Amino acid sequence: MIQSSYVDKSFVEKAERLTPTLHERRVEPVRTIEVEADSTSLHGWKVRETGSIEALRRRALSKGESFVVDFGDHQVGYLTFKIRSEEARADSPVRLKLIFGEMPVEIGEDFDTYDGWLDRSWLQDEIVNLDLVPGTYTLPRRYSFRYLKVEVLTPARKFKVAFDELYATSVSSADLAAVKGLPDSVPEDLREIDRIAVRTLQDCMQTVFEDGPKRDRRLWIGDLRLQALVNYETFRNMELVKRCLYLFAGLRLPGGQVCACVYEKPEPSADDIYLYDYSLFFIATLHDYYEASQDRETLVELWPVASEQVRLALERLDERGIVKDDPSWYCFTDWHDDLNKQASAQAVLIYGMKRAVVIAQRLGDEAEAERLKGEIERVTAAALKHLRNPETGFFESGDVRQASWASQIWMVLAGVLPREENAALLDRLFEENPEVRPMTPYMFHHLIEALLESGRAEKALEQMRAYWGEMARDGADTFWEVYNPSDKNNSPYGSNLINSYCHAWSCTPAYFIRKYFA
Amino acid sequence: MIQSSYVDKSFVEKAERLTPTLHERRVEPVRTIEVEADSTSLHGWKVRETGSIEALRRRALSKGESFVVDFGDHQVGYLTFKIRSEEARADSPVRLKLIFGEMPVEIGEDFDTYDGWLDRSWLQDEIVNLDLVPGTYTLPRRYSFRYLKVEVLTPARKFKVAFDELYATSVSSADLAAVKGLPDSVPEDLREIDRIAVRTLQDCMQTVFEDGPKRDRRLWIGDLRLQALVNYETFRNMELVKRCLYLFAGLRLPGGQVCACVYEKPEPSADDIYLYDYSLFFIATLHDYYEASQDRETLVELWPVASEQVRLALERLDERGIVKDDPSWYCFTDWHDDLNKQASAQAVLIYGMKRAVVIAQRLGDEAEAERLKGEIERVTAAALKHLRNPETGFFESGDVRQASWASQIWMVLAGVLPREENAALLDRLFEENPEVRPMTPYMFHHLIEALLESGRAEKALEQMRAYWGEMARDGADTFWEVYNPSDKNNSPYGSNLINSYCHAWSCTPAYFIRKYFA
Repeated sequence: MIQSSYVDKSFVEKAERLTPTLHERRVEPVRTIEVEADSTSLHGWKVRETGSIEALRRRALSKGESFVVDFGDHQVGYLTFKIRSEEARADSPVRLKLIFGEMPVEIGEDFDTYDGWLDRSWLQDEIVNLDLVPGTYTLPRRYSFRYLKVEVLTPARKFKVAFDELYATSVSSADLAAVKGLPDSVPEDLREIDRIAVRTLQDCMQTVFEDGPKRDRRLWIGDLRLQALVNYETFRNMELVKRCLYLFAGLRLPGGQVCACVYEKPEPSADDIYLYDYSLFFIATLHDYYEASQDRETLVELWPVASEQVRLALERLDERGIVKDDPSWYCFTDWHDDLNKQASAQAVLIYGMKRAVVIAQRLGDEAEAERLKGEIERVTAAALKHLRNPETGFFESGDVRQASWASQIWMVLAGVLPREENAALLDRLFEENPEVRPMTPYMFHHLIEALLESGRAEKALEQMRAYWGEMARDGADTFWEVYNPSDKNNSPYGSNLINSYCHAWSCTPAYFIRKYFA
Repeated sequence: MIQSSYVDKSFVEKAERLTPTLHERRVEPVRTIEVEADSTSLHGWKVRETGSIEALRRRALSKGESFVVDFGDHQVGYLTFKIRSEEARADSPVRLKLIFGEMPVEIGEDFDTYDGWLDRSWLQDEIVNLDLVPGTYTLPRRYSFRYLKVEVLTPARKFKVAFDELYATSVSSADLAAVKGLPDSVPEDLREIDRIAVRTLQDCMQTVFEDGPKRDRRLWIGDLRLQALVNYETFRNMELVKRCLYLFAGLRLPGGQVCACVYEKPEPSADDIYLYDYSLFFIATLHDYYEASQDRETLVELWPVASEQVRLALERLDERGIVKDDPSWYCFTDWHDDLNKQASAQAVLIYGMKRAVVIAQRLGDEAEAERLKGEIERVTAAALKHLRNPETGFFESGDVRQASWASQIWMVLAGVLPREENAALLDRLFEENPEVRPMTPYMFHHLIEALLESGRAEKALEQMRAYWGEMARDGADTFWEVYNPSDKNNSPYGSNLINSYCHAWSCTPAYFIRKYFA
């Protein structure tokens, strides 16, 4: 339970006033398809075109018949259909099953066989009973989908049904018109990656920056930070970032920490998840927002909250100046069962404090900037002394002295070493290829960023092409929550059905391409 | 398809202006129950109380758990519930299955095993996905129910759900305050039958007189005629009868016939079913309406439509003056596979024409009254000559010369014989007990009415007690569409699940009790 003292109503009210009106767009399906089992395809399912929407309109269906429409691209929004009866007047309600899928696997596999580790209710299917036929129906829930399967459960007898219309109303707070075209110099494959990345962000931009419009549909600060970076290079919706910053600032945990994720409804409230790195990302997100927007009023108002995140994070240091490790889920970093988070947490603390210094300087508070610089020196020295293996040069994390990719990447991003040494560290990382590798697009983002900041643009591009480029070749309409090129059917939830296939933290290639390669 | 020439827009518009506002009533469930298999109970299911609603509110449920609430009486209306999470914040949608039942059998039997002859979509179940928990939800569809089963399909993991509130908003166009109490002289069992009958009519009175609020939810003229009779003795909602008369008058079949049933939505329209007796009942319904309301304007306006039903019905007579028989479904009479309808049709024609005479007289059109009397004489004489077996005294129907209960009953109601002979005919009917007996409450109504009109009030009461009284003892909250005391699990649709357990044509005991026994 959140103590009321940490809910700042004026911040939450300010956030609520910034709630955007969504842009709506009517999207027609482009064809009918079937999804067929195929062991050589991703997840074991491939798409085969079966006909036109024109032909579907003429088709009369009864019990047991079904069709699948393809909207041509990923959509987030609402479904409307106009149904009529054929052969006779509808004299009973019509019962339909509707299955929405971002990916062919969701159409191919039976949801009733789902046995993953998150609730089945994230899978997007409905049984609807329609009392009036002919009639036009808009389902009340929002879905995230490219494919829609319609199964006719009834009528079984006197009449059949046909669909005069069937369309999506896609929604987003992102304005595509605000996105600049890429210069001609950008090669085709990067243009395609950029297009998919922009669509990913667009579909995640609703009344907050959602992590995934299919699942979890929530505002996580880890995602927000990356989405905001892409947003500044594309849609430039400053108000939405501001709204999210005020939500996090207004809904802190009882200890004053910025929480990891916020719910918008029924009323704005904090989840009770605290993550060490995520609370520090409030500072970075505020820093980035100010640099992009020059919105000094917000910087002034939210600086105390950011500053407090530093103070609270420092409390976790041991007498050596090292973040206390913990077997519990205290720090996110990446989804990797074997990853020790200590070194990454240490690096994120330094990374956050360096952005705090910039904010203090922007606000003219040189004393605070100096104080923070002193802390950065102390924590950096501790990292170099206690976490770095002088023989290998790798940063090692936890009692197990684990030299993961994540620890090196974050130490590079924290600027613990000079630029040249960072570059050498990353070169060595690729050479040695330690076992605990990046797992998610989120961690791959930080790898690319570390490479770019260390003057390894070519390697960054190569890695981006190998990861997001491969996802594009595997058919991504929007970039996925989870992707392992060497184990493409991997799911951290025990089922490919429940993965999010439009996920915020995967949208950053548009940021890299536009900032570094355009 | 209906020819536009037979749609009288001004009549339909008049009907639409008479659409009533429904009375709403919040109804709380009274207890939780279980439905258990029990071979000695009706349909094989009995109800066992399990606890209080207060206890239910405290209960936290997760995947696989369920409960059944009992609203204490039959309801037609909407469901609202307020759901909260327990143990943790709801971090995923909640998926529930809701099953509404008028009768325990609907809660006990799995709808997925249904294999009856009407579409399964009449069975009242929903799967709902709730994105926001805590939240208050009102389902958009109207249900007809006493029992509600709630199965929790998710959550399965982090949190549980509980129900703070759960109530029905019952709707009806009937105003219970308008119903007079019965005099003290009416015995307890008749009071109970009357109460159930009034509730049956109340729950069928919506924006039209529906046949059954669960199924078919439509305006049938066969039901309307009986509902109107009960209405004049109870709710006295004249406007609703008027609305229904204008709907039928405004939406005739291409030949000018009043159709058997009308749909209100999406816009008022006629079904394409024509039934010989049902179109003649327009005359009787108009007659009864005028006698109850003295609404001369409506009588004047609708008389041409009624008059035309006589003309059209007479066209079906053969050269002998007998209604042409037909193996098709040209006349309703009763639900009985073996029943021949010819004699009943002949009787209904006479019955209708006699009411047409009264209307013509009320309107001062003596010439038309005399003309009709001439037709009545001709058709009556033909019935006596060609349909009556001079040896047995029974009216026989069709080439098979079938002497059914229905044929005798309708000939009595048509007054083909003098009152004393009618009484004797009915006495003989009970003695001989021909094989083709009344099947539905609709036919039982006509039996009771025939007995009452023939001075056999005691026998009528005995029959009413044996039929509706037995239904009441079998647990009817509202009277049923189908009931055979000697075969209680009978369904004309191949499944007890799909029967309507609140059905218009069963509500007439309130008319008999109030008109004849109060």
